Amino acid sequence: MRFQRIAIVGSGAVGLYYGGLLARAGREVQFLLRSDLDAVRKKGIRLLLPEENLQLHPVNAHETTTSIGPVDLVIIALKTTANRILPQLIPPLLNPGTTILTLQNGLGNEAFLAQHFGDGRILGGLCFICLNRTAPGEVTNLHKGSLTIGSHLGGSDDRPASVAELFRAAGVACLPAADLREARWRKLIWNVPFNGLTIAAGGLDTEKLLAEPALTAEVKALMREIQASARALGMEIEDSFLQQQLEVTQTMGAYRPSSLVDFESRRPLEVDSIWGAPLAAAAKAGVATPRLSLLHALLKRLDPARDP
Amino acid sequence: MRFQRIAIVGSGAVGLYYGGLLARAGREVQFLLRSDLDAVRKKGIRLLLPEENLQLHPVNAHETTTSIGPVDLVIIALKTTANRILPQLIPPLLNPGTTILTLQNGLGNEAFLAQHFGDGRILGGLCFICLNRTAPGEVTNLHKGSLTIGSHLGGSDDRPASVAELFRAAGVACLPAADLREARWRKLIWNVPFNGLTIAAGGLDTEKLLAEPALTAEVKALMREIQASARALGMEIEDSFLQQQLEVTQTMGAYRPSSLVDFESRRPLEVDSIWGAPLAAAAKAGVATPRLSLLHALLKRLDPARDP
Repeated sequence: MRFQRIAIVGSGAVGLYYGGLLARAGREVQFLLRSDLDAVRKKGIRLLLPEENLQLHPVNAHETTTSIGPVDLVIIALKTTANRILPQLIPPLLNPGTTILTLQNGLGNEAFLAQHFGDGRILGGLCFICLNRTAPGEVTNLHKGSLTIGSHLGGSDDRPASVAELFRAAGVACLPAADLREARWRKLIWNVPFNGLTIAAGGLDTEKLLAEPALTAEVKALMREIQASARALGMEIEDSFLQQQLEVTQTMGAYRPSSLVDFESRRPLEVDSIWGAPLAAAAKAGVATPRLSLLHALLKRLDPARDP
Repeated sequence: MRFQRIAIVGSGAVGLYYGGLLARAGREVQFLLRSDLDAVRKKGIRLLLPEENLQLHPVNAHETTTSIGPVDLVIIALKTTANRILPQLIPPLLNPGTTILTLQNGLGNEAFLAQHFGDGRILGGLCFICLNRTAPGEVTNLHKGSLTIGSHLGGSDDRPASVAELFRAAGVACLPAADLREARWRKLIWNVPFNGLTIAAGGLDTEKLLAEPALTAEVKALMREIQASARALGMEIEDSFLQQQLEVTQTMGAYRPSSLVDFESRRPLEVDSIWGAPLAAAAKAGVATPRLSLLHALLKRLDPARDP
């Protein structure tokens, strides 16, 4: 069976969730853990899902990638702020045929991985889902989301379809994307305003943010800046997509985006991948993105990784 | 002598400083106090100036404007967030010839006072100065600044020149402004970026703010939005003025603008007068001010006067 042996690198909410579902579906999943290692070894992984609660125990919990060894599929769910450790962390997991799938936020992750591990094996995935790590080894998911998988190289690569099939077999709504780059920009339509403004407005969940007409107007204006940037780069994101992203968020209740959770836990923010890289791409394409520029400058300074 | 009897309404840093200097110069100055009333009654007013320390005791300290009674000149140094109490507070201070000078921040204060007390008596003053209230009844001034006085009506009003003379006799560098409205927009060139970004970037003084190239670029971009708005309203603020405001700030050291001090003390922010009114004026004039719009929306929500 293709992709039987899978390594999850970075076992926060995203890693535990997708890895847990794949393990339940019969894949041999190896988790690389740090903060949750002891808890997962002792009590396994607990997924609180909309329709069921899932307990996985025992779990293949590892402290190093050397103890995992080569796998068929590496799923990277680390924060992009940890990307600098990947060139050391990943090699023990690779054999010539290993595929690497990054589920990380923002722009530039596939290119970074391709640079270090070769561009023929790199896939990217976009998680449209609300996940929160609610205790060590425990993830709560309130709304079933979807996953989009694309190839860094694009074209005739058949692996996105195979990996999508793998996730579908594990109960995840998952489709291959014809154009991974466009899919990434579509994801930014949500991440740029919501991950950013919930922090900059003082630590608000999405419900409180959208209760404020002036801030809702800024959400829309930021979405339009991303749309205009994508358009200048040859990708057309229709207005109805922006509207739908806003409406879906209005049904999500009091959601705390991952960056806000990071901020409140004093963990580094993914400033470069979510805001810096799109800002640079827009500037290169000659598109004015004044709100993104201001938001980026604020978040760069608010980043807990910064010195006081 | 013109303007012999003077009332200071609102005795924070600005009120204590200018009132103190006028009292020292021999004017009969009546202070309306709230939080510092007891301290000022007991120990007077202390001004820590660049070249001397000044102790005034006893001081005419009042709890109500009724106990002050009519004066020649009312100087309003309350936060604009308290404007709604002025229609009740001011009348006991007025006789038909009383002049009202507002030293408050932002746009709209003269119009508000004119609406309630008649437009023939309203002057506005712009304080270009760094003042901090360092203890009850005590104000520290590190850099001698300047004061600009103009008439709400403009034209042939001779009172700005008289009031400027009054302040100069008290040792304040003070000049009448031909165009009060333009002077207000010039002041916004500083207040909009520095009062706003020092808060939104997480509580930074001006030195830390300008240590960050991305934030310095946002300061300049916000200044240009105010400049463009003023231009559309018929006022030309030259580029060299923007540059000079930035350079002066670079020499000011670790200054905490008044709005940041308010924010950190959990007092209401002057959101409407400093950011809201210029934003509305720019919109009416058809000028795009995306950064001002985003900053305004953030500050409106960060305002400690807001419910959590």
